[in-house]
Amino acid sequence: MKDFEFHIPTKVIFGKKALQKIPKEIPILGKKALWAYGKTSIKKTGLYEKIKELLSKANIDFVELGEIKSNPLLSKVIEGIELARKYKPDFILAVGGGSVIDTAKAISCGYYYEGDPWDFFEKKATPEKALPIVVILTISGTGSELNEVSVITHDTQKIKHSLRSPLLFPKISFLDPTLTFTVSPEYTAYGAVDAFSHVFEFFINREYKKDFLAEDLMVALMKNILKWSKIAIKDPFNYEARANLMWASSLALCGLIKSGIGTYRFPIHAIEHTLSGGYDIPHGLGLAILMRAWIKKFKENNMIKRFFIKVFDLSAKDRDISDKGLEIFENWLKELRIPINLKEAGIPEEDIEILVDKAFNIFVLYGAEKEYPKEKIREILETAYF
Amino acid sequence: MKDFEFHIPTKVIFGKKALQKIPKEIPILGKKALWAYGKTSIKKTGLYEKIKELLSKANIDFVELGEIKSNPLLSKVIEGIELARKYKPDFILAVGGGSVIDTAKAISCGYYYEGDPWDFFEKKATPEKALPIVVILTISGTGSELNEVSVITHDTQKIKHSLRSPLLFPKISFLDPTLTFTVSPEYTAYGAVDAFSHVFEFFINREYKKDFLAEDLMVALMKNILKWSKIAIKDPFNYEARANLMWASSLALCGLIKSGIGTYRFPIHAIEHTLSGGYDIPHGLGLAILMRAWIKKFKENNMIKRFFIKVFDLSAKDRDISDKGLEIFENWLKELRIPINLKEAGIPEEDIEILVDKAFNIFVLYGAEKEYPKEKIREILETAYF
Repeated sequence: MKDFEFHIPTKVIFGKKALQKIPKEIPILGKKALWAYGKTSIKKTGLYEKIKELLSKANIDFVELGEIKSNPLLSKVIEGIELARKYKPDFILAVGGGSVIDTAKAISCGYYYEGDPWDFFEKKATPEKALPIVVILTISGTGSELNEVSVITHDTQKIKHSLRSPLLFPKISFLDPTLTFTVSPEYTAYGAVDAFSHVFEFFINREYKKDFLAEDLMVALMKNILKWSKIAIKDPFNYEARANLMWASSLALCGLIKSGIGTYRFPIHAIEHTLSGGYDIPHGLGLAILMRAWIKKFKENNMIKRFFIKVFDLSAKDRDISDKGLEIFENWLKELRIPINLKEAGIPEEDIEILVDKAFNIFVLYGAEKEYPKEKIREILETAYF
Repeated sequence: MKDFEFHIPTKVIFGKKALQKIPKEIPILGKKALWAYGKTSIKKTGLYEKIKELLSKANIDFVELGEIKSNPLLSKVIEGIELARKYKPDFILAVGGGSVIDTAKAISCGYYYEGDPWDFFEKKATPEKALPIVVILTISGTGSELNEVSVITHDTQKIKHSLRSPLLFPKISFLDPTLTFTVSPEYTAYGAVDAFSHVFEFFINREYKKDFLAEDLMVALMKNILKWSKIAIKDPFNYEARANLMWASSLALCGLIKSGIGTYRFPIHAIEHTLSGGYDIPHGLGLAILMRAWIKKFKENNMIKRFFIKVFDLSAKDRDISDKGLEIFENWLKELRIPINLKEAGIPEEDIEILVDKAFNIFVLYGAEKEYPKEKIREILETAYF
């Protein structure tokens, strides 16, 4: 086991009655909120009015920053910072999924920074102060509600980069699974794949490769994501499925399961960021395609076999374990009705070389270019094509 | 899944080099520490001198409160409060296991309370302020390093009660598994049983009984405690065993695995408190005996059978599942060289009726006397005798 630090300062309020606790919990953070949200869906579902009422009960004034889209853009972050500098909020209220939360996080530290907020994402600057963030989660998957990471896309460079700072943990996250009842089967699937991919990357791309406690916690999370995602797709109003998916997604990227694994890489995410950043396809879709390619390419690898044994309950003695494992994974994606290759997702084959270059640059930024040379990236993308 | 709140504000610094971070991490809490520790063993192992050096490096002055014994006493808490009121520390440094940490916790809130600190334990008063606590853990088991609970024994009444307050979470816990290399096989076993019992009680005595994410996290913890405890007993300097036991113990009672289980009871702990409180036997020993009695008595019960299936990998179809499960559990205790009944532990049989009364009073305090009438308690204790 490798040395580690573990610190999750976020307070989670989880369940059907979570939102009722807003008037009691958030006034401690101040009286003025910048309220960030995504598309108009929160107005259709009635959530917008409900939150307005709760804020009024809590005597909180607010300004709104709406229309945050998925694969959130730097330009929106800058718009938010400008709005915040005029309004001077005490905290940011993020109502949505990962895109809204990540935008709120970037605004929260960009607010106190005089330079271009993209500097944080290019590792040219480090956040030194940030506004507190409160989350009301409406879609499961990214885990942003319980971590210190923000992922933003540069508008013109079409590049997605991530920022990590302990200042970015939300202060309070309200997780009400019933808010995800109206998430489409498609986006439910993408969210489940996203959460699964976080655990999968920790499992296979870690320094400490032995079988130990954190590995079994990973297995528990992956098995539950597999199980409950299938149910949620078929039965969107199944509370148990929505609740287990929501909590598993939060735990998947909060620092719990990486405790003791040492250094790790997220190569599937690095390559994926060129897809959702470049073509505006859902992040979960890109991850599904690349995870399947990764498994296909490395199915004989020991860590992938251990993944098959522990997560899919295959036998180590089974000669066909690699093929069976790949098949079970592909069947899961099919059951979630997700395209399993780049071709089905509509990415032009001739773009592969551009994607290789972009992905390579991301690995360079993380000092991982020796581990992931262009050739290796190209092989993954070629495997992902069909 | 039931509604829940999840908040673990403690920062954990884990590993072989954890203590080296003391000079960087603790000066933020102030310049004066009340340093609480147990027996002289930290002087024999050299830890005392090492910490003294680290405190000096961090420019921290201190007074010492030593000689805290296991099953820690209220009188020691009062002594600590008096010492603290004279010295006015900025924080309490607890170096030891659960007994030292629990004493530090009781002092931390008793410091600001004018009445008898026992009031907190009898639910006559609630802590409103507490000194910050820093932990250096030297023995695994109780999980006190990552939770908000303190258990103290009343000197004359020979009763153990617990206090729970969010103010009691340590600010920082330094967990270095190498510090437990010198823990005797006996106390290693008691610690492992203590941690196991926390998960076991959550597993069997919970409101939400369905199979879901938290249950699988419980299973992962229990399997790892079983596995690594056997190794640590035989090979005390095995870092992986010590590290996995330490981290599993911390996670077992930190709020993670009870997320979503609804209300729960800790009846085995309630009854045990009459044993270690009354006869000064190790808490882990009392728990081992009572867990074994509980399993023996309720081995046909559905939740116990599910425990056998998931934790011991027994088959649901096996007709002898109950007997086999009990046998596996007893074999574990035997491998840990722990007495498995009250007779072996030297408790006089004629005391059972006194224990029934004492345990019943604890259940009354928690409003659980209807669920656990005297008759039921007597049956458990009688089963525990042989």
